[in-house]
This record gives sequence, structure tokens and C-alpha cells, in this order.
Amino acid sequence: MKKTLLSLSVLLLGFTAANAQSDTVMMRKIYDEALVNGQCYQNLRYLCKNIGGRLSGSANAQKAVEWGKKLMEGYGFDKVFLQEVMVPHWERGAKEQGYIISGTKKTPVAICALGMAVATPANGITASVVEVHSLQEVAALGEKGVKGKIVFYNRPFDPRYIETGGAYGTAGDQRRAGPSMAAKYGAVGVIVRSLTEANDDYPHTGTTQYSDDAPKIPAAAISTKAADKLSAMLKGGNIKFFFKQNCRMLPDVLSYNVVGQITGSENPNKFITVGGHFDSWDLAEGAHDDGTGVMQSVEVLRILKTLGYKPKNSVRAVFFMNEENGTKGGLKYAELAAANKEEHIAAIESDEGGFSPRGFTFDGLNAEQIKSLNKKYKGLFEPYEADRLVAGGSGSDVGPLRAVAPNAVLIGFRPDSQRYFDIHHTANDVFENVNKRELELGAATMASLVYLIDTRGF
Amino acid sequence: MKKTLLSLSVLLLGFTAANAQSDTVMMRKIYDEALVNGQCYQNLRYLCKNIGGRLSGSANAQKAVEWGKKLMEGYGFDKVFLQEVMVPHWERGAKEQGYIISGTKKTPVAICALGMAVATPANGITASVVEVHSLQEVAALGEKGVKGKIVFYNRPFDPRYIETGGAYGTAGDQRRAGPSMAAKYGAVGVIVRSLTEANDDYPHTGTTQYSDDAPKIPAAAISTKAADKLSAMLKGGNIKFFFKQNCRMLPDVLSYNVVGQITGSENPNKFITVGGHFDSWDLAEGAHDDGTGVMQSVEVLRILKTLGYKPKNSVRAVFFMNEENGTKGGLKYAELAAANKEEHIAAIESDEGGFSPRGFTFDGLNAEQIKSLNKKYKGLFEPYEADRLVAGGSGSDVGPLRAVAPNAVLIGFRPDSQRYFDIHHTANDVFENVNKRELELGAATMASLVYLIDTRGF
Repeated sequence: MKKTLLSLSVLLLGFTAANAQSDTVMMRKIYDEALVNGQCYQNLRYLCKNIGGRLSGSANAQKAVEWGKKLMEGYGFDKVFLQEVMVPHWERGAKEQGYIISGTKKTPVAICALGMAVATPANGITASVVEVHSLQEVAALGEKGVKGKIVFYNRPFDPRYIETGGAYGTAGDQRRAGPSMAAKYGAVGVIVRSLTEANDDYPHTGTTQYSDDAPKIPAAAISTKAADKLSAMLKGGNIKFFFKQNCRMLPDVLSYNVVGQITGSENPNKFITVGGHFDSWDLAEGAHDDGTGVMQSVEVLRILKTLGYKPKNSVRAVFFMNEENGTKGGLKYAELAAANKEEHIAAIESDEGGFSPRGFTFDGLNAEQIKSLNKKYKGLFEPYEADRLVAGGSGSDVGPLRAVAPNAVLIGFRPDSQRYFDIHHTANDVFENVNKRELELGAATMASLVYLIDTRGF
Repeated sequence: MKKTLLSLSVLLLGFTAANAQSDTVMMRKIYDEALVNGQCYQNLRYLCKNIGGRLSGSANAQKAVEWGKKLMEGYGFDKVFLQEVMVPHWERGAKEQGYIISGTKKTPVAICALGMAVATPANGITASVVEVHSLQEVAALGEKGVKGKIVFYNRPFDPRYIETGGAYGTAGDQRRAGPSMAAKYGAVGVIVRSLTEANDDYPHTGTTQYSDDAPKIPAAAISTKAADKLSAMLKGGNIKFFFKQNCRMLPDVLSYNVVGQITGSENPNKFITVGGHFDSWDLAEGAHDDGTGVMQSVEVLRILKTLGYKPKNSVRAVFFMNEENGTKGGLKYAELAAANKEEHIAAIESDEGGFSPRGFTFDGLNAEQIKSLNKKYKGLFEPYEADRLVAGGSGSDVGPLRAVAPNAVLIGFRPDSQRYFDIHHTANDVFENVNKRELELGAATMASLVYLIDTRGF
């Protein structure tokens, strides 16, 4: 088999002994290692199936930390350590109930509490419903239109965004700020259409952010099918809505970022970080969000080590804790970077799912630098169909580095975005929805960028 | 809602009245129509769920033809017509059986007859097994090693191909030519490892091609899991294999290509074709292979018509019959093109699944022309992440046009290839495995290319 492998490589690449050490050859080796001997898929299976959902502060999150540290230690990296961080501890409690009341008829609908939301009273909330499509509409309705009611945010995803993150971003204010906006005008509860284009019966959780200048009122996500039904029934006449949720905030909990490091041979105090977040929502296994990102990150280090690559700069894989409801892990990583006087060159975050790689977005390079980056690297990524190297944001966990490392290039790994929000934050975010090759190609793409940054810079 | 739509477009594109007719604007309209009002997903659901698998010559294939014609007529294209074509009629018959015999123990394994294969005798075939990894190995073994045995081709997919079609192409000789090669040396049957990287228990059918200089022996595909088990048991000692299949060839059947046309305003006898194949294997619904291709093709015409675009050249959507086991529809289309003295400018085939678009491969443009094409069009496709415009093959159905239209540009639509061979030719090729947005983006990408070719040429 070895011989066949080599001769195919020769055939594919036409390389000779003379340029055997070139970037092209190294990248081919990286992809071959990921695709032939890849371990991120089996690691992800373990994380999803043997640990499962791992919301910050939960027993499962602690299990994940312990397993993740062992996994890294098993790979024999130069350093493996934990970073202590206090995280919020929110619990969903017993499964939520929701139904539409029309006369004596009750139609059950699929809902789930938004993350960080408060509970309803023990006997739930029953109220009439006002449907809106924006926060502005709530303000325009004012107390007269909203007081004592349940506000139902029902603005759908805009399907015209090619990258679905755009639709998520623009629809997301309803979930994030909608509850407090409704509370300001006296609403008693909020129901938000799930942030997805999928038309199904799975509600999508995700954090809501209560503002300090309004009462905290219960808020839940409703499935898109149920939202359409509720909207239709509202047009049909006088209905009420009932929902009951049982979530609560507990005291903060000591948790950890898990860090693995290959120490730089030339610049041990200069760092290239690749990471994802270890915590997940509680409704499923946190497979694409963000099991794939953390398992790809450790795979990046495994691949480089396996290939005998000795980085000039220190390369770290970081499993950040608490991205979903606090970003405390990302903030702690930046805080410790400053305290320890680390020099951060670059940090890559994978938190958009384990789908086919398309490229990266770069924060910290100007237009001229992006152009030069493309000149150097686009051709190298082209054979792997991951050559979109454009300006853009990075990720919630590496983002805080900006404040302490003004010159760091913060990078978002960008996989194909079409399927992510179908399952994001739902009961469907399970291992079975991850494709092995897509996951592996992503890991290889990130490993290649780490290698290129380390070897040749930006 | 209309107002919001418009203002977002303005925001996204920064277009003004002055360039409102530009290609950029037209492409944005095409994508918006596909994503907001798309009909290919619901049409595909009908095809998969109300008709289902549609192997050439079957009653279902005829149902599909009748429905497809009505669908096109419903859209009010300028012409909708059928092209008569005689197609082979192969039937699988009762479900196949296979097991590994070790002493008195029988271990059942998942197999299915290869398309066009012959049946076993009524009581099946029981023989010892010789495992090989290539056709050359069979020749090297010769009669001495093969005679009276079942030859088991077990060379796996090579995971290092970035586009999985490469792995399919190179592993495929085992299925296509393996049975006749084994028969030449006296084998009594052939078992072929399924052509996939997926590790599961679904056998993948697909055509085998018997050569005239060897007896026709029964040949079946075995699931990858079962192939691994068989291989392991062969190493463990003396085993036999039993299989029984009940397929048969029936007389050829009259069938049809379904053609819809928007007639060109300037060059009615010049044609741009977009198509996929209407027939499918019988194990499932032919969703990705190739329900997506045909439903995208008719969507291309629907979008152009809905947007009021009047093509200069005639644009056709073609549902080709019999790609899977004969390509008789593709051959007939070319034959009639010649007989009717049609001038074919371009033909695009979508037969690699309804996944996220990546671009197109072009057959009929030289390196200089590909370069010029990229200069003109790459930037237009970039915002849609479908800008890989490279030299390459087209598809089995449009391929025959080359013989009668030497100057035609034959084009393959290229979606992301990672998931295709997981389900290709198996019981899993069902509607549920198609993503709505991915399908729609593909249709919009093809419609855009048709528009560009029609307006500006290559």
C-alpha cells in the first residue's frame, strides 16, 4: 500500500526530489494524513456518544474537560494544561410545554427555553399573543399593544443570503434582544421563531441577553412549523398561548479551557492558536456546534506532529469553554495571554460546523495584505477547493485576543454554510449529521494554514 | 415584504439605475428567484415520493415521463415534446441473498446484483473465494487460481482524491470490467466491494459491462462492512460464499427523453441545453442520482421565463432517459440533433448530485479560452461560491453531442462531491438526503451560466 500511495502522489503532483520540501508537497502530506489516517472523526464520535451535550457548568462539561485533557496528553504534545475559568451555570430543567388555545381546543407546539432565560411561574403563562416582525414594531406598538401579552417574534430567515450566517445575524436580534424589548413595554412572555430556514418541528435554543433596564420575562424558541401554525391561527381569530418552562440560573462554576501545545523551536513565546469551543447546548450532542471545531483543532496538532513538522512558533489547540452563554473561556485565554506576556501572531477559530472547507476570513489584514496573501496562498489551497481567503470576522473565542494582541491576525475557518442552521442549537445536532470526509478536509485545511503562517507568515 | 427585498438588494449590491441591467444584477435576480420562490425542491419531492425509483423500461420510468411532460407543459414553455428511444429493460427480480459459510455457520451479508448482471442458477452459487485487488491480479492468478471460484474484488476507494469522482473512476474498473475478466479465467461468480468510502451495510449497485469474449457470470456488489468481514474471514481459514440473484434482461422498451424549450428570439436553431437523467437505479428514489439534475434543469427554464428573460438562442431542459444502463437517451438526443440540423452551442449536464455548487468543468475550450472565460465570468460567480471554472469532462448524456457538434462546449455542473458516493446507487438515495438550499443554489448557478452563454458567449 505504501508504494501505491507514493506513486499516486508522484502522479498527482508531478513532484521531484528537488522540490519535495515545497509547500505544495507538505500540504499534500497534510491532506493525505487527514484523509487516510485521520482521527478527528473517531474522536468526535467519542465526544458525542460517550459524553454528549456539555453545557457550561454541567457535569458533562467537566467530563469533557477531563477526557479532552487525556486525549491531548495521549498525543504527546509538548505541553497540555488547563486554564481555570468561572462560567455561568444555567439549567433548562424539565422539558418545556407550549400550546395554542383556541376556545376549548389546545394545540401542542414544539418550544424550548432560550438559553439564560428565566422560568415561567410554576403554572405557566397564559396570555393573548401579538405577532411582530421586528423590535421596532414592538416599540411602535408600545404599552398599549404589548402590555400583558406574549410577544411573538416571527420574522423568518432571509433565504437570499448566500452564506447562511448572514441570515442568522440579521434575524438574530429577535432572540438576543427581543425579550427585553418586549418586557420594556409590559409583555409577560416572548416566543421567538427559530433561527433557521429549515421548515420542521425542532425548536432552536440559543442565548438571549436580558438588558438591565427591563424586567426579565420568560422567553422561548418555537419551531418554524409551529410558528407558521401560530401565525395562521392568529389570523383566524381569538387565540391564547400557553407556555411553561423550568430553567434556572445557579451559582457560577469553576471550569476550564483545555490547551495543547507544540512549543516553537525558534520563537517559543510566539503563538499560533487553533481552536473551537468545548461547551455546547444541552438539547443534543453538540456535534457541529462545536464538537467538530475542537476535534479538528487537536487534529491539526496531531497531523503536524505525526508528519514530524517542528514549528518555529508555538502552535496551540484550544478547547474554549463557555462560548454559548458567556464566552468566559475566550476572555480568560486573552487575559492570560496578556498576563503571561505571550505574543500572539494568529488565532484560527472553527465554529461554523464541520462541513466542506471553503476557506478563511481574516481580521487584522488590510486590503493590500489580503491581496498579497491571496497571491502567496490562494493557488496552494485551490486543489483542495478551500481557497476563499477574504477579509472578515474570526470567532467569539479568539475575538477577545484583539484587545491584548492588536497585531494578531484573527481568522475564521469557513466551511460550506448551507446545512449549519438546519440543525444548529437543536436536538438534531448529533454525530450522524457529520460527514467524515468533510470534517477531515476541514482539519487538513486548518493544519495547512497553520503550517503556512508558521513557515512563511502572512 | 417586496420593499424589504428591494432595499436589501440595493444594500448588498450597491446597484444604481444605470447598471440595473448588468450581469451582476441579473444573476442576483436569478439567485433570489431560486432561493425565494424556488420550485425544484417540491418538484423533486413529488418525483421521489409519488413516483420513486425509475429504472429504464420500468412502469415507473413511464410514469415519470408522463409526469415530467406535464410539469414542463404547466410552466408554459414554447415547446414541450418527447423523443422516442428504445431502452434496455433489466429487472432485479426478488431480493438477493448472500452469506459467508464457515463450517456449519452461515453469516448473512448485504449484497445486490450489479446492473445488467445475469442471475445465478435457481439454487444460487456456492464456491470458495479468491480475494483480489485488481483485474491484473486476476490475470496473474490465471485459471489455476480462479477457475471454479468466486472472485472477490476488494480494492477500496482511495480517500486521497479531493473530488470523490476520482476515487470512483479509479475503483470502478472492478465493477465494470471485473466480472468478464474473472469469467475469462473460469470464475463462476464475482463479488465487488461497493464503490464508496462510506463504511456501512448498504450495497451499491451500478452497471457491469460484460465483454463478448467471456461467459456472462453472475456479479453482485457487497457492502463495505460485509467486504471487510469477508476479507477478515478469508484470512482466518477455509470459507465458502453463497449468493443468489434473480435478475433478468427483457426485450427493449420504447421510452422517451422529455424536452422543454424556450425558443431563441434571434437564433431559434442554435441551442443551449441543460439536462440530467430521468432514469435511476431501482433500490431507492433516485434523488441525487439524478432527480436533482432533472429538477434543476427544468428550474433553469422556469427561472429565466419567470424573470422575463428572452434568450437569443433556444434554451432546452432535457430529461435524458437511460443514463444508468445504456445512455440510449443521450445518444438519441445527439442523433436527432444531427438529423434535424440543429446547431448546438453548449450543453450542461447536472449528474453529480444536488449539493452546494462549486462551478463547472468545460470540454471544448482550450487553455487560452478557459483563461478568457475566467476573466469574464469568475468574478460574477464568486459571490455565490461557485467560481471554479476549469477544463474537464461534461456528462454521459450530453457527451454524445460531441460527435455531431464538434464546436459545442460540453459542460459538467460541479457540486461539492464529498457526500455523493456515500449514497450513490444505494437504498439511501432518497429525498431526505437532499438539502433544499444546496439544490436551489445549484439551479441558480446553472441558470446563470445559461444566461451568460446566451448573452455573452464564451
